[in-house]
Amino acid sequence: MEPHRFEEGFDGLYGLEVVDVGDGEVRGRVAVEDRHKQGAGLLHGGVYAAMAEALASLATYLAVRDEGRVAMGMSNHTSFLRPILRGTVHAEARARQRGRTTWVWDVEFSDDDERLCALSRVAIAVREPRPDQPR
Amino acid sequence: MEPHRFEEGFDGLYGLEVVDVGDGEVRGRVAVEDRHKQGAGLLHGGVYAAMAEALASLATYLAVRDEGRVAMGMSNHTSFLRPILRGTVHAEARARQRGRTTWVWDVEFSDDDERLCALSRVAIAVREPRPDQPR
Amino acid sequence: MEPHRFEEGFDGLYGLEVVDVGDGEVRGRVAVEDRHKQGAGLLHGGVYAAMAEALASLATYLAVRDEGRVAMGMSNHTSFLRPILRGTVHAEARARQRGRTTWVWDVEFSDDDERLCALSRVAIAVREPRPDQPR
Amino acid sequence: MEPHRFEEGFDGLYGLEVVDVGDGEVRGRVAVEDRHKQGAGLLHGGVYAAMAEALASLATYLAVRDEGRVAMGMSNHTSFLRPILRGTVHAEARARQRGRTTWVWDVEFSDDDERLCALSRVAIAVREPRPDQPR
Repeated sequence: MEPHRFEEGFDGLYGLEVVDVGDGEVRGRVAVEDRHKQGAGLLHGGVYAAMAEALASLATYLAVRDEGRVAMGMSNHTSFLRPILRGTVHAEARARQRGRTTWVWDVEFSDDDERLCALSRVAIAVREPRPDQPR
Repeated sequence: MEPHRFEEGFDGLYGLEVVDVGDGEVRGRVAVEDRHKQGAGLLHGGVYAAMAEALASLATYLAVRDEGRVAMGMSNHTSFLRPILRGTVHAEARARQRGRTTWVWDVEFSDDDERLCALSRVAIAVREPRPDQPR
Repeated sequence: MEPHRFEEGFDGLYGLEVVDVGDGEVRGRVAVEDRHKQGAGLLHGGVYAAMAEALASLATYLAVRDEGRVAMGMSNHTSFLRPILRGTVHAEARARQRGRTTWVWDVEFSDDDERLCALSRVAIAVREPRPDQPR
Repeated sequence: MEPHRFEEGFDGLYGLEVVDVGDGEVRGRVAVEDRHKQGAGLLHGGVYAAMAEALASLATYLAVRDEGRVAMGMSNHTSFLRPILRGTVHAEARARQRGRTTWVWDVEFSDDDERLCALSRVAIAVREPRPDQPR
């Protein structure tokens, strides 16, 4: 898969770029600008969480869509270890469970110096398509 | 406090409006538009997480700044219960712990019909100011 | 339901007592003894997590068993707010989502002085019975 | 360090054995018996959580005690991926952050066939000793 930048929706709004999608792995990144920061000038925690959610959902969806199934986020737990002030935030997601009804992903975030900056654990539900249905 | 819409940074980018800040409580909202959605047309999970992070951080900061202390997000765990497709997402945050070094917040998200749609638990570190310092 | 003390399995080992099971609510408690503590003399974090897991699983199971379904823990996130050294730890669990495939519970722990000491968020999967099946 | 079996407190009650403690790494195990199970005959979720809490706390404490500091659990998020019915549950904990005030650990649980069965993320607070102090 070629690097791909989202143009629409929330992932387009903050500029998520998907760098690579493999089997149970996906990498993405965002070039950090002022529009990604919180009041103290650090990368906003919501950006990490959004990236983790998007990458885990996308990769799960790509893996299950051939069976006509859909992927929906169930939970997203992000821990912030080291602030990022500039440069690019790099995300690397790895599937830890690929179950019939649930996929669990670990996402690691690093800065341009390859320092670990945040960790996400994301659970994605895999379901038969039922639009507008509460989970 | 008057309702206040963020104009800058990430909270400005997605349009967070703070409706009310009280003692250990804060409420906010976002009017859901296409730019807040993921590929299936639902409100993106990163928007909930960003709102929870922003509201908990803001309210902690307002409570500790008079002592010269700062607030930094430590972790953000958001559970997605029911998708939102349109209208406004309403967030209500409540401090569950106001410790010397950690504040813990519960954030509840609802739609215009007051249905519970997501839950966040956010931990905020309170520290002496040390810029650029890993936590 | 009458108060009930587990006699077998792990819940019997540490002495979980279920005080009340209602509709979407369940309460339990453990009398804190030396065998529940960690090295510093505080109630061990695993006791809170075990209680939350047991109460949420039990109450979900009781609600879905008439449909021939089973309940299995998916995730358990416990935050420790205030240590308990003696007396009784009281747990109160409340269902926040009762979905077709997932129930989400909030569990609050307090000491004998009704001070909030810990919080758990527990996700329980509801499934058709498939023994020994990875989730 | 020699393998060590806890004899007292909660870790003694369920029989935690610490196999190895290294620099930012610790391994432990529990031989699964009926007293570790929940009602359906699976290893109780509280056992995983307790093991993660104990191993992360112990290893953090061993690393900071020479500075006169103490370690206290802040949060424990355990995800259950695959049930264990018999044999031994093996835990391997790795420090992901070793900050001045917070250590974050990832703990992986596997069965005797080296299949990944559960994941924990544990945050440990490092503090100056202040007994009985709310965090």
